[in-house]
Amino acid sequence: MLFSDIAYIDMDFKVKEHGFIGVKDGRIAYIGQAAPPDADSFGRVYAGKNKLLVNGFFNVHAHTPMALLRGYAENMALQDWLHKKIFPFEDRLQPEDVYWATMLGCAEMLRYGVVSATDMYMKGKAMGEGFRDGGVKANFSIGASNFTGDAYPDMKQYKETLQMREDFHGLDEGRLLVDWSMHAEYTSHEKMVRTLAQTAEQYPDMRMHVHVSETASEVEACRERHGGLSPVAYLDSCGLFRTPTTAAHCVHLSDDDIAILAENGVTVATCPKSNLKLASGVAPLARLKKAGVNVALGTDSVSSNNNLNMVEEMRTFALIHKGVSGDPTLVSPAEALAAATVNGALSQGRADCGLIKEGNRADLVVFDLDKPYMKPVHDLLNNLVYAADGADVVLTMVDGQVRYENGDWPHLDIEKIYAQVESSRRRILAELGA
Amino acid sequence: MLFSDIAYIDMDFKVKEHGFIGVKDGRIAYIGQAAPPDADSFGRVYAGKNKLLVNGFFNVHAHTPMALLRGYAENMALQDWLHKKIFPFEDRLQPEDVYWATMLGCAEMLRYGVVSATDMYMKGKAMGEGFRDGGVKANFSIGASNFTGDAYPDMKQYKETLQMREDFHGLDEGRLLVDWSMHAEYTSHEKMVRTLAQTAEQYPDMRMHVHVSETASEVEACRERHGGLSPVAYLDSCGLFRTPTTAAHCVHLSDDDIAILAENGVTVATCPKSNLKLASGVAPLARLKKAGVNVALGTDSVSSNNNLNMVEEMRTFALIHKGVSGDPTLVSPAEALAAATVNGALSQGRADCGLIKEGNRADLVVFDLDKPYMKPVHDLLNNLVYAADGADVVLTMVDGQVRYENGDWPHLDIEKIYAQVESSRRRILAELGA
Repeated sequence: MLFSDIAYIDMDFKVKEHGFIGVKDGRIAYIGQAAPPDADSFGRVYAGKNKLLVNGFFNVHAHTPMALLRGYAENMALQDWLHKKIFPFEDRLQPEDVYWATMLGCAEMLRYGVVSATDMYMKGKAMGEGFRDGGVKANFSIGASNFTGDAYPDMKQYKETLQMREDFHGLDEGRLLVDWSMHAEYTSHEKMVRTLAQTAEQYPDMRMHVHVSETASEVEACRERHGGLSPVAYLDSCGLFRTPTTAAHCVHLSDDDIAILAENGVTVATCPKSNLKLASGVAPLARLKKAGVNVALGTDSVSSNNNLNMVEEMRTFALIHKGVSGDPTLVSPAEALAAATVNGALSQGRADCGLIKEGNRADLVVFDLDKPYMKPVHDLLNNLVYAADGADVVLTMVDGQVRYENGDWPHLDIEKIYAQVESSRRRILAELGA
Repeated sequence: MLFSDIAYIDMDFKVKEHGFIGVKDGRIAYIGQAAPPDADSFGRVYAGKNKLLVNGFFNVHAHTPMALLRGYAENMALQDWLHKKIFPFEDRLQPEDVYWATMLGCAEMLRYGVVSATDMYMKGKAMGEGFRDGGVKANFSIGASNFTGDAYPDMKQYKETLQMREDFHGLDEGRLLVDWSMHAEYTSHEKMVRTLAQTAEQYPDMRMHVHVSETASEVEACRERHGGLSPVAYLDSCGLFRTPTTAAHCVHLSDDDIAILAENGVTVATCPKSNLKLASGVAPLARLKKAGVNVALGTDSVSSNNNLNMVEEMRTFALIHKGVSGDPTLVSPAEALAAATVNGALSQGRADCGLIKEGNRADLVVFDLDKPYMKPVHDLLNNLVYAADGADVVLTMVDGQVRYENGDWPHLDIEKIYAQVESSRRRILAELGA
């Protein structure tokens, strides 16, 4: 495809007007201010008038299959919410429920220009098949937990991850990658954490995903359990961060924690909407930024969001830190867009993704600008970050393949997905007697 | 029009499936679970499959003509932003700039299901003509300011308001209403405040709009100027609240302030996104709620938002107070929707608006539910408040007139609006030498 005479956000986060971007073999093969000499060789020409091309979004903390639980339980205190609603529902999940819910999540992500997810859930085979067929990139994992310390490394999740590795790791020229994962300090016996840390080190092509310091009470309980160590310090002492790690949430961090994250190159997957909805708080962005920690954006699950709209997430990220810090200059539009794109790509180990740059993977998204709220144009990047609507995405391309365009997902049967998800929902509620 | 077999949110904020809502003479004439016996008399039948009908949104603090400044200046400290960018731009505004920018804002509001605005700006005749032709309801005013105390009540803004009253107050069966307004304590000499308060009392069919306690420094400076009185206490002491008042922002309030607001029936127009973007803080919602203060939602101007998307505003409102208070039960979906609809209607003195109720004005909005992020449906109200996209609005009706439908504004020439606004933008930037 050749995007012709289109505005785009370049690799330095500057707006370029009237650009020509050519895609070949899944990669960005040409960027210029005029059509390439071999324009005919790019195939379809996409007319760029009134459109904005941006790199696709990377959602670095999702539990995609929880699409099935959207709107199921709201406005409850966290423990009630988990124990009375979420966990009983999840106990009923079958692999086919996870598969179709993953597909629904993929359809939603593509609708909103999301090209990749870092995902943690359960039933890894069904997840992998869902991501394989859903068409987004994914670094996915099953969140290991273990309360007794007995079972590791023979535990189920360990074997399941290695099976997932065999089935999916590197599939589709690296579109799918399998990560290691442990759910969180508070659900993991120390034996498991240390064994997982050691095991992961033996697989240098895999990464680590973990929940860290989401709530103040989690940090406090960890300090009590582990001789005053915070979750960050404790996981570091277990060697977990020797594997490149994405640490989700990181709302409650000491300066020492931040130094550890920076030193180990840990990415903070910040989830501002979820942290607000579950009343967890607001991550210390100014301190993370000062320490040079890579901060990338995630939605968390739709149970605590309730969508996978990365435009909305990016805007919340751009706004919340200003309001809470009292500094209206914190988080520039370029920083917000970087957190939603290239920072996430780096956290997934995808060095050839996240920027509109020659040779990079063609993960491209087109916004329609023909909207009253995108007028006038003083600066298109400002309009994108602060005014655009996620639903303005009219085309999403992953590795050069069009996966969404104008209400259609060429590779998906969307009505079947809706029907299967509804069928799962009804069966589970019936089983729960609800 | 007869909305047929449609899901809707009823006047108790419960979801009703398979409803029939009939509109006649600008009002809701029928609500039932079956078609009315005289179905033929309602005219056009709107098929409600996969649709959700809600009352239109009331945006109770806007500066609609600032549509022209969208994205013009970002990520600056407040005083720099105002004095280096916003005020110099505004100094160049001509009436036709204000007219076309108001029209652009109306187009945007209708796109997002907003049926009414409480608006404060300048050049009241141009604003009035813009709202008249733009097709939304409006309570609009010019924000009076006076630093010397000399000119009031003969000052320009006083006369302008009375002229606006003559030209527009009650127009189109009350669609347009003119309010009194003073910009804020810090821009108003006490002589003006007291004269305005006395004058407004003589017009019992008009209301008052004022900025109050937006920033901590504003409150501090007011206390220094006025013997320790906060802006709320000071304005009350001047008699301002004897006229029904919408007080915008109210971020920094003492318990005494809140008692004064409650006692005087003052509506707090809370603007969560703007308060975050300008780093003003977060309004004390839990305390306002406890005191029974009417809290309604506004976007503020697009310079500090940057859109008029009330779905986004409602969601930010539903999330931010949970995150900041630590209480995930604060602001239920019903409370969020009420703040975006009926609470705003009441603040505008429109007792027959804001709810889907027989006899009320037909200010109705249709959301398309055929979206991956609106599936599955455990609860449609949860999905609306936490997951829907503002752009899912496919129809907006004001007083029974369809003012937006599927990308078209029947009464507006949208391309002409875009062109006029762009022409204004270029002229002003040229005048500024930018």
